[in-house]
Amino acid sequence: MPSAVGGTGRTGGRAGRPTMKDVAAHVGTSIKSVSRVLNGEDGVSAATAERILQAMAELGFRRNDLARGLRQSDRTSTIGLALPQAGTRFHDSLVHGIDEIARQQGSFVLTASSGTAARERETLTALCSRRVDGLIVVPAGEDHGFLRPEQQAGVPVVFVDRPPHGIAADAVLTDHAEGARAGTAHLLRQGHRRIGVVGDDERIFSVAERIGGHRAALRTEQVAYAEELTRLGARCAEEAMHACLDLLGSGQPPTALFTLNNQCTIGAVRALRRLGLTRRVAMVGFDDFETADLIDPPVTVISHDVEEIGRTAARLMFERMAGHSPAPGRTTLPTKLIARGSGEIPVVDESS
Amino acid sequence: MPSAVGGTGRTGGRAGRPTMKDVAAHVGTSIKSVSRVLNGEDGVSAATAERILQAMAELGFRRNDLARGLRQSDRTSTIGLALPQAGTRFHDSLVHGIDEIARQQGSFVLTASSGTAARERETLTALCSRRVDGLIVVPAGEDHGFLRPEQQAGVPVVFVDRPPHGIAADAVLTDHAEGARAGTAHLLRQGHRRIGVVGDDERIFSVAERIGGHRAALRTEQVAYAEELTRLGARCAEEAMHACLDLLGSGQPPTALFTLNNQCTIGAVRALRRLGLTRRVAMVGFDDFETADLIDPPVTVISHDVEEIGRTAARLMFERMAGHSPAPGRTTLPTKLIARGSGEIPVVDESS
Repeated sequence: MPSAVGGTGRTGGRAGRPTMKDVAAHVGTSIKSVSRVLNGEDGVSAATAERILQAMAELGFRRNDLARGLRQSDRTSTIGLALPQAGTRFHDSLVHGIDEIARQQGSFVLTASSGTAARERETLTALCSRRVDGLIVVPAGEDHGFLRPEQQAGVPVVFVDRPPHGIAADAVLTDHAEGARAGTAHLLRQGHRRIGVVGDDERIFSVAERIGGHRAALRTEQVAYAEELTRLGARCAEEAMHACLDLLGSGQPPTALFTLNNQCTIGAVRALRRLGLTRRVAMVGFDDFETADLIDPPVTVISHDVEEIGRTAARLMFERMAGHSPAPGRTTLPTKLIARGSGEIPVVDESS
Repeated sequence: MPSAVGGTGRTGGRAGRPTMKDVAAHVGTSIKSVSRVLNGEDGVSAATAERILQAMAELGFRRNDLARGLRQSDRTSTIGLALPQAGTRFHDSLVHGIDEIARQQGSFVLTASSGTAARERETLTALCSRRVDGLIVVPAGEDHGFLRPEQQAGVPVVFVDRPPHGIAADAVLTDHAEGARAGTAHLLRQGHRRIGVVGDDERIFSVAERIGGHRAALRTEQVAYAEELTRLGARCAEEAMHACLDLLGSGQPPTALFTLNNQCTIGAVRALRRLGLTRRVAMVGFDDFETADLIDPPVTVISHDVEEIGRTAARLMFERMAGHSPAPGRTTLPTKLIARGSGEIPVVDESS
């Protein structure tokens, strides 16, 4: 958490916290201008506003110091939500959970898709310029330091699914590593030793964590991690299907598959069907999906409650808006193994 | 389309179109105030702004008359999208399609869920107050006349999935009736005469249209529509499952099911499984879904390209933003029957 140390222009303030006066003195502008920037009013040039926001960040000025004294009308009753991509099931469930809490609080949610890391800053800035009371971010980029002025100006920022970089903020995560460890251990218990892994890009935090958990489970059972059984970079079900076909068609194919998200799971089911192997190759997938129990065999999954992740993130945000200001921390939600059939297929003797 | 006739304060203007001066005269305010409202600037009281917007609507003032002369910076590069509910598959695909076109145009999409009809006006007003260049609405309520001032002020509004009421605006729809007719005809061709229907609330436009198409197909084959085979009001897969269990457990159960959306289809599959009837009762569902081909038997569906609906709506909106101004119209996109197995099950002799 940023401290107020180094606020050269500070002239006091309770508990050492900088005031609007300190910010004004630091920039060499009027308190009225600082107030205007803080309240999103016009009448301050863009350059001055930027310098004021920068000073707020440097001095560790926090609007929460004032929040209790602000009129309700300073609030916009709007929450901003930034997602890397619109229209994935993870994001739907997340929006659902956030929306539920926001409605309870009389707020409405504006959602924007940030897309690539390059576009993320632009999207988040555009979202903030619409005056949101708080911001929930599923990060796409690597550095979110540019959100510090917003945060310092009293807009709480909560990160979801991936931790923040370049900014101290709350994060709500899934215990990806433990989930993947449990899923892999489940396959090891059925006797599998050659477990194929199919997933998205390893540079994504959740993917890296899941692979870490998978390897930890192998280590516990002293099974060597075989690089040649891992196929990463599958961005959709179609790519995952081809990765699985490649893996299962190799000289020493895996006897089980561990898929790192539900798109990969669906791709793997298609590959197993195409090869007539649905009852011979075991499979555990990360992420549950609505029809997993209707597929033959029903798919064993590592499930996480994404709506609850959304609710938790929204609650943290509203708590900060209400003036709670503990040090930013991580909340990690557990996963659950749901055994349905595909993950309980035993090793088939390769010579049979 | 609103005409300029009746604009008592009009003092001319080319082609009889009212100017800002006409609006100012009508309200008894300055041209500067009209300009401020038009450009979303401060300095006009809420009451006056409301009267100016009202006058714009009454006089048929259209910002497009000015648009070509406006600086690019008057645009916010933001599209508003209002959905009745976040996190349904229909909406995901829609957002995907809209986002694709918006990105090509260098715009970004702000999405808000309007929820109930009562909440819709509030949500749409809040969205508009964020200064969007255009608005795409999946209607929840029954009257969208309150959007006329926005529309008159030059913000194109396009409706999706359900036609607008109380406002003349473009609408992009699916040919629900023809799709339902084709799906029902398909079941009739397999010899089915007792076809159960399970769907959501009939007050929803798409539901009513689909039921209309179903009944039209029955009429063509001179099959009586049996009220007792229809179960409406199922809002989720769980409710649809119970409706199907009820229907299939009745004295004279249907030999086939026609489900009106994918939640109902999934509920029906669960009911058929529970009763061990998946290979004895035929089924056609409206809406395709990702794993429909992986279920046993694979599900025959009436598919519509929801992403294309989104792209079409976005293209219409950007065309209007670029100055095209044909009379508002309806674009209806076709559906496609995808036969996969469940819809091709023949009538099982009830005495067997």
